[in-house]
Parts: sequence; C-alpha cells; structure tokens
Amino acid sequence: MNNKLLVLGTMAYDAIETPFGKTGKILGGCATYIGLAASHFRTDCGLISIIGSDFESEYLDLLKSKKLDLEGVECIEGEKTFFWSGKYHNDLNTRTSLETQLNVLTKFKPKVPQKYKDASFVMLGNLDPSIQLDVLSQMTQKPELVIMDTMNFWIESYRDKLDELIGKVDVISINDEEARQLTEKHSLVEAAKVIQDMGPKYVIIKKGEHGALLFHENKIFCAPGLPLEEVFDPTGAGDSFIGGFIAYLSQRGKVSFEDMKTAVIIGSALASFTVQEFGTKALEKMSFKELSERIQTFKRLTEFEIELT
Amino acid sequence: MNNKLLVLGTMAYDAIETPFGKTGKILGGCATYIGLAASHFRTDCGLISIIGSDFESEYLDLLKSKKLDLEGVECIEGEKTFFWSGKYHNDLNTRTSLETQLNVLTKFKPKVPQKYKDASFVMLGNLDPSIQLDVLSQMTQKPELVIMDTMNFWIESYRDKLDELIGKVDVISINDEEARQLTEKHSLVEAAKVIQDMGPKYVIIKKGEHGALLFHENKIFCAPGLPLEEVFDPTGAGDSFIGGFIAYLSQRGKVSFEDMKTAVIIGSALASFTVQEFGTKALEKMSFKELSERIQTFKRLTEFEIELT
Repeated sequence: MNNKLLVLGTMAYDAIETPFGKTGKILGGCATYIGLAASHFRTDCGLISIIGSDFESEYLDLLKSKKLDLEGVECIEGEKTFFWSGKYHNDLNTRTSLETQLNVLTKFKPKVPQKYKDASFVMLGNLDPSIQLDVLSQMTQKPELVIMDTMNFWIESYRDKLDELIGKVDVISINDEEARQLTEKHSLVEAAKVIQDMGPKYVIIKKGEHGALLFHENKIFCAPGLPLEEVFDPTGAGDSFIGGFIAYLSQRGKVSFEDMKTAVIIGSALASFTVQEFGTKALEKMSFKELSERIQTFKRLTEFEIELT
Repeated sequence: MNNKLLVLGTMAYDAIETPFGKTGKILGGCATYIGLAASHFRTDCGLISIIGSDFESEYLDLLKSKKLDLEGVECIEGEKTFFWSGKYHNDLNTRTSLETQLNVLTKFKPKVPQKYKDASFVMLGNLDPSIQLDVLSQMTQKPELVIMDTMNFWIESYRDKLDELIGKVDVISINDEEARQLTEKHSLVEAAKVIQDMGPKYVIIKKGEHGALLFHENKIFCAPGLPLEEVFDPTGAGDSFIGGFIAYLSQRGKVSFEDMKTAVIIGSALASFTVQEFGTKALEKMSFKELSERIQTFKRLTEFEIELT
C-alpha cells in the first residue's frame, strides 16, 4: 500500500448566492474541494481535471502551494473553464442551479499520469460515470480503495454506466435523497443494503446538517452534524467531507470499518469548516490545530455515560 | 427530592393510517405514551387527564397494571373521549390530521391529587398552555424539574399564555420546526439560545429520524436517530422520548447536564421501539433487557477512536 491519492473531478468557477450574500466568479469544483481537504493530511495527492485558459494562475498557484500535483490537470487554450452558478434558499438545504456552462468539460478525456497509475487510493468525484470508469481502467494496479460520488443527474439519465461503475468501487458517498432515488427505498437502512448488493462494501449516506451514516456489512456508524450557529455557504461541504475521509485513510494506510468511522468524523469536521465561509476560503486557511479541536468537539457532542440497573 | 412524577396530558382514542396499514380506534394520547414509557423505570408516576365513559376499562386496567396512579384521571359520564385520526405520508415525516374531536377535552379542569402536589418531577404534556399553567399553580412545593412539550397550534394562537408558561419551566421539549416557528430563527443553535433566554435552562430539540439535540448554557449534546429498517407508525415517538427522559431522571434523582445526556439517549431508545408497531403496542411489551440492548446499540452507533498526529 502506498499513500498516493488520485482525485478525479471538476475544477470550476462558481458564482454563489446565499441568504447572506453573493459572490462573483470564485474557485470551485469537486476536485478543488477534495484536493484542498486532502492537503491537510500526509498524502501524495494528484488531481485529474480539465480547465480553460481563463483559469486564473493564482488559483493554480494556490493548489500547488498546498502540494497538490497538477500534472493530470489539462488546460485547453482558448476555451473556458466549467462554470456553475446557484442560489441557496432560506433554509440552505435546497438550491436552484441558475446557470451551468459545461465549456471544457465536454472535451474531457482524463489521462492518469504515470506516477499515479499505481495509487492505492482513488477518489472518483462527481462526474459522468463514463469518465469515472475511464480513469479506473487506466490504473495499472488494483487500488486498495476506490471511492465514488455521484448525483441525481447521472442516476436519472446514465443509469447503465452508473451501475457498471458502482459494481467496481469499494465505497460510495451519496446523499440521502440520491440514495432513495437510486434504490427506490425510503428507509436509508434498506437503501444502503440495496447499494451494498450492487457492489460497494461500504456505503456513506450524507444527510447534510444531520450528519452522515456509514454502512458496512450489518454495522452502522452515525456521525452527527455539528450544530452551527451560522451556515454561510454549503457549497463543497460534501466534497470537503469525502476529501478529508479518503486523505485520512491514505495517511493512516488502513481501510477497516473502525478506521472509516474516524475518517467520517474527520470529513464531517472539515465540512463544518467549509460551510462557514463562501467557497474554499475556510478550507484553505484552516489550521491543523483548529481541525483537532473541532474533532474533539465532535467527540464531546455524542459522548455519554450510562449505568442502567 | 422525591421520585414522584406527575404527568399531565391527554388520554385518547387514535385512528392511524400509515403506508403499512390502518388501525381502528386504538389507545392514544400523550399522557398514555408518557406514562407507559415512565412505567419502565422506578418512579411513582401519577397521570392527570380526562376521559369519557366510552373509554374502555381494559385500557384503564392496562395502565394500572403498569403501576400508573390514575387518581388524577377524571371520567365524565355520558361523554366521549378525545379522538384524533391522522394519516402519515409515504416518507412518514409528515402527516395530515383527518379528524379531531375534542369531546371531554373542552371540559378539562385538571385537579392535582394531594399525593402529587409535592412531586419533584412534573411533566406538562402537549395541551392548552392555560391548563399546563393551572397544574403548575396547584403544586404546593416547587418541583425539582418541570418539563413541557407544546405544538404549532399553541405557538400560533396562544402565544401570551405559552410565553408565560415557558418562563416557568426548566426544560422544554419541542421539535425542530416548532423551535423555528417559536423563535423565527432557522439555525437550531440560535433558536435554542432564544428559547433559553425565555426561561428554560435546558432545551431539547427533536429532529424526528435525525435524533435530538440537548442545549444547556453553551453546551450541546447530540443524540443520533437510530437508523431503522422500517418505521411503522411514528405516533407517540416524541411522548415516549420525553416520558423515558423524565422517568430516568426521576429514578436517578439527579438533574445535571450529564444525567440529561443519558436521559436523552434513553428517551431515544424508547421512541425507537414505539415507532416499530402501531400505537402503544411496542412500548407496552418492551422488556428492560431489550431496552438495555437498544441503548448499547445507540452507544456503538456513535463511538469512535481518534489519534491525530
């Protein structure tokens, strides 16, 4: 097992509106969030993505300064970077996409750099399942752990390819509504069982402000959502979560259920930072000390003593 | 401190429809659920409620067999018991009231039996806040702990009396939507602060399948919702929760934040039984051994080890 972590995903410009304010074009994309989350751990992380020549060099410099390997990031001259804009409603649990410009994404033919073809950890961020499968097929050595994320769009319209991919991964990270949509089961316990039968030995169901559930065999672990006074911008929370999750496992070099429980808490702690500011800001500046303290807060949140007689 | 627990609330007939089936008139009412939950603990529990002469004697026998003191339950000859019927939607998180017949409830003038006027623990179940205040005013000795529940109807239409009551209790148990409605704050952390400023030192916010939060000073405890394969009928879950909560504290004779954390888990465990069958059935037949095992399940659900370096 090596500590190489290959991350496939988008690098993007986002424009976000929440009840608290509005941004111009800022740095976004799932590979960006996953990479920035992973950069807080001792892992050798390489990104595979695509950008246009409008992608600002300061953003590339930022990612490089975090020791992220960008060899797998293709830049297409004269084209524009993937752009998404969205508006969160008052409860911050629902959002409306205002605009999606695929731009360079339509030309994305991922190429895994030689160095990462034997990576022990592979994170397939939310993208067309054909692209996720393509990356997996380029690995020269079977990874220790392959994790995938997806979303409603692929579940609705790319079901065959998606099922093929789900059959090849070890862990799936999905939100509660998507799990229900994928399995047509309302109970998340039932949904997780159906997904486990499709292939993944581990199923993570994200419940937004209510935390996350990890399923493995007949075991369940429940990570609380940290009750926050203010959620500023939920964008990237799920990606920060899964980035922290896999980077921690890669640093630790272990992939048992017990290790994954801890990894789920670490991911939750990272996500709790991300939502406190617009975009990637909080994730960029968070210190390891702050992360450790936040994890202790998570521990205190659910600890109790019991002696029943 | 004594271990007397006075419970105010409705005793009722319910008719329930869920995606899994439909009942005729069955035993219901918040005092019933709270009392049955409390009966699993060593506490001297008396109910204050009102019923009509149509209330079946077998239900009274059931409650008596659980050592619940019914001296405070008034029966009005020739009148009918409070009746509620409701239908749960497919997700079981929302329901529609089909019919509400107040019947004897309109004549309810609660009378606290002499024996319970010095009860250390008082549970004011969901009812008109004037009735809740009336019971409180009949106590001859200040209780150690007064807990109240309420619902949207009283928040909307009886706000003055409700605020007066909230100012006099130690613990409020309320669901997330009601907490938001009461405080006009979306963040539950902010909502809890506003409610604490209104009087209660402890605020419990119930989140249905997502568990419950306990707030005290600047501390928060988060009880997970137990992921269940099948939720059969959510009726009475909140009442079973709070009944187990206060009965455990009464048995233990302590009311610290640490004790309340455990009490919240015990309440959650009881509620997790209640929802697995129609009405009060699961609560009636649950054994202490089953409860202990369920509490261990709750413990395992959130426990994790961490060593970050």
